[in-house]
Amino acid sequence: MNVERGLLIVLSGPSGVGKGTVRKALFSEENNNLYYSISATTRKPREGEVDGIDYLFKEREDFENMIENNKLLEWAEYVGNYYGTPVDYVEKCLSEGKDVFLEIEVQGALQVKKAFSEGLFIFLAPPSLSELKSRIVNRGTETEDLINNRMRVAKEEIELMDAYDYVVENDKVENACSRIRSIITAEHCRRDRISARYKKMLEVE
Amino acid sequence: MNVERGLLIVLSGPSGVGKGTVRKALFSEENNNLYYSISATTRKPREGEVDGIDYLFKEREDFENMIENNKLLEWAEYVGNYYGTPVDYVEKCLSEGKDVFLEIEVQGALQVKKAFSEGLFIFLAPPSLSELKSRIVNRGTETEDLINNRMRVAKEEIELMDAYDYVVENDKVENACSRIRSIITAEHCRRDRISARYKKMLEVE
Repeated sequence: MNVERGLLIVLSGPSGVGKGTVRKALFSEENNNLYYSISATTRKPREGEVDGIDYLFKEREDFENMIENNKLLEWAEYVGNYYGTPVDYVEKCLSEGKDVFLEIEVQGALQVKKAFSEGLFIFLAPPSLSELKSRIVNRGTETEDLINNRMRVAKEEIELMDAYDYVVENDKVENACSRIRSIITAEHCRRDRISARYKKMLEVE
Repeated sequence: MNVERGLLIVLSGPSGVGKGTVRKALFSEENNNLYYSISATTRKPREGEVDGIDYLFKEREDFENMIENNKLLEWAEYVGNYYGTPVDYVEKCLSEGKDVFLEIEVQGALQVKKAFSEGLFIFLAPPSLSELKSRIVNRGTETEDLINNRMRVAKEEIELMDAYDYVVENDKVENACSRIRSIITAEHCRRDRISARYKKMLEVE
């Protein structure tokens, strides 16, 4: 039987906007039907982060080997660390008709878009820049220089919004999740994805 | 203040698929935020249908006057009756930022698409052709000739699915409504509709 190919859903947005929180909330829902592709990174684990669950934590040398062997769908060096998406798991899920969910940085999302233009690119946006700054400050893990650097990068990233299909405001986590669920449902109803199935119905009956 | 223009949502599909039932269920929900544009028709009211609520019931002569005076966004003659959408209410709502919902026949939807290609065109589809036939038969208002005619037209209409943006299967009314709500939410998140608002945020702060 021919399986309808799954959707590749890419959630991205400025650092500090709450991508990880939104992703966790989406995956904690019952019957979410999403398959999460864990990113690899060379950044040090933050408190509470677990290897193989939050990220695949890698040494720089191991990560650079994956780059050389084309084992990454996308990768980027960001504020001094590598981040990337191992390709094999993504391809396997899509061909089995599963929806794969990536939560990645903006530069990585733009790379994925080049390889997978049929993906669903969702930009998670802060309600305002001042709100974004207070979220980064409240995280308490960054120095003042790093905070200013992140804000500068965030402004540049918002300028890159045009490469995305959807913009979801993260005013509240549950609102953002609800919008993302709606986007996924809507995309599964897109005529270009499913009209062939209906045309077939006409031949059969 | 500049108001973001509302969405024009067009629900259509073969006769008998359940457009009216789905529309009523959508509008019975709390906080649905939809504005319904009532169709005008020359068809006789079915039992329980109320003039000004279900349709604007018109004499043929009155309807033909509206056609001549360009007072209809679309109109069609369908199984011997005229159906059409008065244009003034639709334009007023859209310019006030309201989402307008049309529930119309397939030929009418194709006319609206020519005038409003930025509209949201949703095709309500039966789970199967046999299911569609049993719904038309069970309605109990049609002769056998009319039933066969409707089935022939329905097959032609399913072939016209390619003009639509979305296909929603009406397996159950509540499922169809949930998909349609998701589509509307998703369309409000489309980057091309809202990125200007975010770019403005960058200028201000």
